[in-house]
Amino acid sequence: MTPQEFPQLITAALAVLDYGQAPETLYDPLRYIMGLGGKRIRPQLTLFGAYLFTDDLGPAVKPALATEVFHNFTLLHDDLMDQAPLRRGQPTVHEKWNPNTAILSGDVMLVRAYELFLDLKPELLPAILRRFSQTAAEVCEGQQWDMNFETETTVSIAQYLDMIRLKTAVLLGFALELGARIAGAPEADAEHLRQFGTAIGVAFQLRDDLLDVYGDAATFGKRVGGDILSDKKTFLLLTAQAQASFTQQEILRQHIGQPVPDAEAKIAAVRAVYDELRIRAQTETLIETYFQAALQHLDRVAAPEARKAPLRHLTLQLMERES
Amino acid sequence: MTPQEFPQLITAALAVLDYGQAPETLYDPLRYIMGLGGKRIRPQLTLFGAYLFTDDLGPAVKPALATEVFHNFTLLHDDLMDQAPLRRGQPTVHEKWNPNTAILSGDVMLVRAYELFLDLKPELLPAILRRFSQTAAEVCEGQQWDMNFETETTVSIAQYLDMIRLKTAVLLGFALELGARIAGAPEADAEHLRQFGTAIGVAFQLRDDLLDVYGDAATFGKRVGGDILSDKKTFLLLTAQAQASFTQQEILRQHIGQPVPDAEAKIAAVRAVYDELRIRAQTETLIETYFQAALQHLDRVAAPEARKAPLRHLTLQLMERES
Repeated sequence: MTPQEFPQLITAALAVLDYGQAPETLYDPLRYIMGLGGKRIRPQLTLFGAYLFTDDLGPAVKPALATEVFHNFTLLHDDLMDQAPLRRGQPTVHEKWNPNTAILSGDVMLVRAYELFLDLKPELLPAILRRFSQTAAEVCEGQQWDMNFETETTVSIAQYLDMIRLKTAVLLGFALELGARIAGAPEADAEHLRQFGTAIGVAFQLRDDLLDVYGDAATFGKRVGGDILSDKKTFLLLTAQAQASFTQQEILRQHIGQPVPDAEAKIAAVRAVYDELRIRAQTETLIETYFQAALQHLDRVAAPEARKAPLRHLTLQLMERES
Repeated sequence: MTPQEFPQLITAALAVLDYGQAPETLYDPLRYIMGLGGKRIRPQLTLFGAYLFTDDLGPAVKPALATEVFHNFTLLHDDLMDQAPLRRGQPTVHEKWNPNTAILSGDVMLVRAYELFLDLKPELLPAILRRFSQTAAEVCEGQQWDMNFETETTVSIAQYLDMIRLKTAVLLGFALELGARIAGAPEADAEHLRQFGTAIGVAFQLRDDLLDVYGDAATFGKRVGGDILSDKKTFLLLTAQAQASFTQQEILRQHIGQPVPDAEAKIAAVRAVYDELRIRAQTETLIETYFQAALQHLDRVAAPEARKAPLRHLTLQLMERES
């Protein structure tokens, strides 16, 4: 089994998962959201975490799927909380069914995620489920911070970075650590992989923030400028607010949190302030800082260089994606 | 430790549980709903399940709390789905905070429930978490059936009984089985306790249905006739619909699923049909059938009679409660 085959392995394993049958109104939404696709990054990372230390990836497969089921559970409930109409271009579960179904189908997904760990060797189980539970709680904390920030007037850059670490990055770290633990890796290596995954997770999210403003409309999947339009307190906006001159502050104040008569004018005005403050370059520098810190953790993992190379390659690919 | 001390032990153990700190908007609702009280029946049953086989109840305490945290998680999400304004006479979480907080705080409660099992001996953990996960999924299935029934025109009595078994009874069965497994009870005894708990759970719910119609307004906590008013498809209504004469069918049709100009008149008319059909006696007979079946399972548990007696006593007390 080579890393190029991981996506097929994950697709095949997901295809035969039995989430439950009756009532269909409970389990159909679960199959629906899992069927919407996605890059399956988290289960790939779990397989990578194992592959660094062993050729026997079998025991890592179901726990790898657990990270994907959990991730989709968070998407399902987050979409409901955010009242998002679409997910991967398709109607969200609360739109296609109703809010109650989204709540309850999400709940049972979290249960199914836990179940996917239970074939692990009993001696591995307590530590892994402790780490999974901690990660799951952190993801909830991150989502709650994100919702809190919407109504808070002052959010610091440190708070924002901590929010995205909790909401999105820790699960990537856990996915890698999980594979390493299943493969029997030493504690120190599992920990370095966790830190590697968490750091690339923060870098990915910062890159998402950047693409939302500076992405190519042709390749970026969403509307460029969406974060600006919705007054989202991203790293870019918080940095601009922290560094703006009196004149720039005034421009930001005229547009952020105000009625929007002209969407394109708002996006252009805010982006002009970003440009003056060189927010793009500053964000790229921070992304590079997280990325380099991540790579240093990977360097310190005691695994064959030939096995680390494809993981580095995947990470680089994900960093350079345009959508 | 005697069974009379179980409630104090549970209260003390709940009081020192650390659910998490920040953000407060995530964890305060969790503390709030756990603090609303209740009879703590499920953790008591877990302690009983262990007490039948051992004097060492220590390892059963945190898993006992897991059943209570899980139960309150289901209350939190069910109250949101049912748009219930009050829980134990206090505002529900989605009323006191907001729906999104109810979703997310509930999610983290389910995670905390799982965490409370993780101090168990590793060799016990897979089987117990498999049974807990199965039970948790069944509770979700029961809630979904209950919601489906609201809009279905024909619900059979068998479907209704299966719904209450899933939605409320299986967790009581699991709570008992859990204690037995932790105490190292033989598989057959754990299974008898599970069946005992599930049967009394169905009996309790049928008794709730009965009290809702025939309870004493002075001692019953809720409005008598509430189920009739809301057209809830209970065992009483479904049985009446199945057995009604043409005339009685017509009376039921005039009131069920129709606008309610006079609430007391509706309750009186439907109750008159119930009385003619001796629905009260029929329900009492079914309750007694479940109760006797439950006791037969308890009889077959290989534990000292002196230890079973207090469990039988608690069950009887709960059966005879008036609210």
